[in-house]
Amino acid sequence: MTHLEKLDQYFTKHRDVHLEELNNFLRIPSISALSEHKADMTKAAEWLVTSFKDIGLEHVSIDQTDGHPVVYGDWLHAEDKPTILVYGHYDVQPVDPLELWDSAPFAPEIRDNKLYARGASDDKGQVFMHIKAVEALMQCFGELPVNVKFLIEGEEEVGSPSLEKYIIENKEKLAADLIVISDTGMQGPGQPAVCYGLRGLCGVQVDVKGAKGDLHSGLYGGGVQNPLHAIVDLLSSFRDQEGTILVEGFYDDVRPLADEERAAYEALHFDEEALKKEIDVPALFGEKGFSYLEQTWARPTLELNGLFGGFSGEGIKTVLPAEAGAKITCRLVPDQDPEDIVKKLKAHIEKHKPTGVTVTVTEFDKGKPFITPFDHPAIQAAGRSYEKVYNVPTAYIRGGGSIPIVAAFDEILDLPVVLMGFGLSTENFHAPNEHFHLENFDQGLRVIGDYYEEIKSISKEQLKK
Amino acid sequence: MTHLEKLDQYFTKHRDVHLEELNNFLRIPSISALSEHKADMTKAAEWLVTSFKDIGLEHVSIDQTDGHPVVYGDWLHAEDKPTILVYGHYDVQPVDPLELWDSAPFAPEIRDNKLYARGASDDKGQVFMHIKAVEALMQCFGELPVNVKFLIEGEEEVGSPSLEKYIIENKEKLAADLIVISDTGMQGPGQPAVCYGLRGLCGVQVDVKGAKGDLHSGLYGGGVQNPLHAIVDLLSSFRDQEGTILVEGFYDDVRPLADEERAAYEALHFDEEALKKEIDVPALFGEKGFSYLEQTWARPTLELNGLFGGFSGEGIKTVLPAEAGAKITCRLVPDQDPEDIVKKLKAHIEKHKPTGVTVTVTEFDKGKPFITPFDHPAIQAAGRSYEKVYNVPTAYIRGGGSIPIVAAFDEILDLPVVLMGFGLSTENFHAPNEHFHLENFDQGLRVIGDYYEEIKSISKEQLKK
Repeated sequence: MTHLEKLDQYFTKHRDVHLEELNNFLRIPSISALSEHKADMTKAAEWLVTSFKDIGLEHVSIDQTDGHPVVYGDWLHAEDKPTILVYGHYDVQPVDPLELWDSAPFAPEIRDNKLYARGASDDKGQVFMHIKAVEALMQCFGELPVNVKFLIEGEEEVGSPSLEKYIIENKEKLAADLIVISDTGMQGPGQPAVCYGLRGLCGVQVDVKGAKGDLHSGLYGGGVQNPLHAIVDLLSSFRDQEGTILVEGFYDDVRPLADEERAAYEALHFDEEALKKEIDVPALFGEKGFSYLEQTWARPTLELNGLFGGFSGEGIKTVLPAEAGAKITCRLVPDQDPEDIVKKLKAHIEKHKPTGVTVTVTEFDKGKPFITPFDHPAIQAAGRSYEKVYNVPTAYIRGGGSIPIVAAFDEILDLPVVLMGFGLSTENFHAPNEHFHLENFDQGLRVIGDYYEEIKSISKEQLKK
Repeated sequence: MTHLEKLDQYFTKHRDVHLEELNNFLRIPSISALSEHKADMTKAAEWLVTSFKDIGLEHVSIDQTDGHPVVYGDWLHAEDKPTILVYGHYDVQPVDPLELWDSAPFAPEIRDNKLYARGASDDKGQVFMHIKAVEALMQCFGELPVNVKFLIEGEEEVGSPSLEKYIIENKEKLAADLIVISDTGMQGPGQPAVCYGLRGLCGVQVDVKGAKGDLHSGLYGGGVQNPLHAIVDLLSSFRDQEGTILVEGFYDDVRPLADEERAAYEALHFDEEALKKEIDVPALFGEKGFSYLEQTWARPTLELNGLFGGFSGEGIKTVLPAEAGAKITCRLVPDQDPEDIVKKLKAHIEKHKPTGVTVTVTEFDKGKPFITPFDHPAIQAAGRSYEKVYNVPTAYIRGGGSIPIVAAFDEILDLPVVLMGFGLSTENFHAPNEHFHLENFDQGLRVIGDYYEEIKSISKEQLKK
């Protein structure tokens, strides 16, 4: 019997017990955003402590932070073998509007092989799979193929305000050879995906001020600059009409897409026509010479997120407004640096500053882009594990969004990060009737168990970024 | 004794009586916007009827409309002489916030030779001056030098919704050789002005629609058109960076400023530096080659009055909004036609329509520009009357704003319109503590009395536009 067959047998045998254990975890309403659930946060953390100890993890602790605690546990007896740091979170989103749930959010229920509960997919279900994978390996083989460290936090749904400090202060304790996170999604049903990159983020607010108050457009119009025209001219200078960003030096540090990556994206046969219909736009739109996936995964953007000034009610008001404002954010790709890009945005604004008004610029929070090279052995190993279980080619993808804590891990610990998620975009995380497809629970347990074994055969040296 | 000296004597003698009569008019709270003042509207109309009859007007009537009534009266015994149609309004603005008034709005009070009351300047005080000018002429000379028709409406402060229909239905009754309106302002203290032109108005709302809902700027950004970028590019195409309007054919019908007009504006020595300080802008801004007065009186504009889309709260929200919108209005000058300009705006939008979104255009109400030629004898006569009383050169001005009812008079009756106002821009019309400088009440009575005499010596033929 192969390694994977043994695991398969174990998971099959213990499925009911495992699901009941997961249900107990899901019954704890650990909503990090609501202070009335503080005791539930402790309860969820303690539930993890018990689980960690039950499966044989050591140095198990609840580590206090300025916010909700972090739960830690490790097993470090695979001498000379790589160490995997598993990151996840035990907190969940609020549940309102409660009346839209078909079953109570903290009373887990299986319907049509889907487990309905708040946190089923995001992220208790996926954290639980790593715990059970460790249990299975220990039970089947008496030991783990690699060293593991679990770091499960309680503030992900509120932006991880305490975690960066915790990582910095516990850099030695968290030292590892790679980070595995199961908190993202698959490419589609039956279509597993390894995500190896995310875009970064930076941005500015631009405020344009004209006269000290709104002016009558009849009495002053024609002789005084209009802040709305000023901002429109300024904003229009940021991109050409085909979407190419005109900020000087903006693309300087963009790492070109490797041929292998382009081939991997093409292999996904992404249906642009279906997307067009789904979001109901007359045409897709983006930088020439790049596919939609390249545009959203591997190219940086500059987007207006908000624009305001003057009268927005019904009908007409002939005002020449005193001020106007815009919010601009950029999604960044490796190797762009948010600090550098903000500097370039500011220089662009300075260069295109309209006359007759004053312009002020305010910076937003920044997040670096993250990438683990596509051909990194930890990424490719994840792809192999998926393929063994799902029997289809793995999608190698990047994400267009930004997960700041991933960038923080990347920056502070400087480790390859592997995002191997088992969720589906249709599973209503952050919404009523969150659920988790149990076929991905079942297959995911096997993928994770196999992945630990795959990593065993890669040397620490090879895992270095 | 000259004609004017006789009038002067009469007004001096009757000043106290006249002011007490005006106070009685001002005590009626004829607020057209508020239905609870319906009885007061009737009371004010009846007050006018009595006044008209007292001074010798004939055919006096309260003419019902769909809204508040119009009061009419005439004196038509100056055979072969021109007929002046005097237009004004007996309704006033609401008075809130009441607590900001230093004396009750409908309890007239003189402080520092200024008469404080709602309507003192706008427009009861100025309507009253025409009534008393007729009275004085009748009393001093036993007859009027010209024919007069009074048309005083009760809905000016709510946009004159019934008047256009009334004018069309009473075209014969209102037939005249010129229209005189005293409902505007002087150029400044001691600086009388004849206003001989106003700008027209037209505009459109532009709505840009992208996806069926807001999109995540990380997941979709770079591959989908952003309605905010689309609208910014579109709007930026309307004007160049110096304020010149780029809509094809926009300036085609603009009547060039006559040398006499330019000279008249220069003679005003308008203080652009003072304006800059007053409204607190770093610099004035407008079409090259034109002075501020030319820009705001004799040149058309295209102004953004409102711009909206996406997130306008504090901080950051990385949304790629589903829609964006803008409100655009144009001030028009002779001989631009609002219908034609809207057609050109639409053609411009069609030509510059961005891709990846849908654009819809909605028209706003239109108003034609109005002008009585600067050298028209009715205009020049008004200037002479002012100069005889004020002993300073009259300012010949245009207004940058639009008074739709003036354009309606101009269009339906096709008569020269003379705007001879006695208000000052500091007199808080439409605000608490509205007041009227009594020196302009006193001098204005004499100007109007003299003007009727001036018109007498102009033939009907000469008065034709």
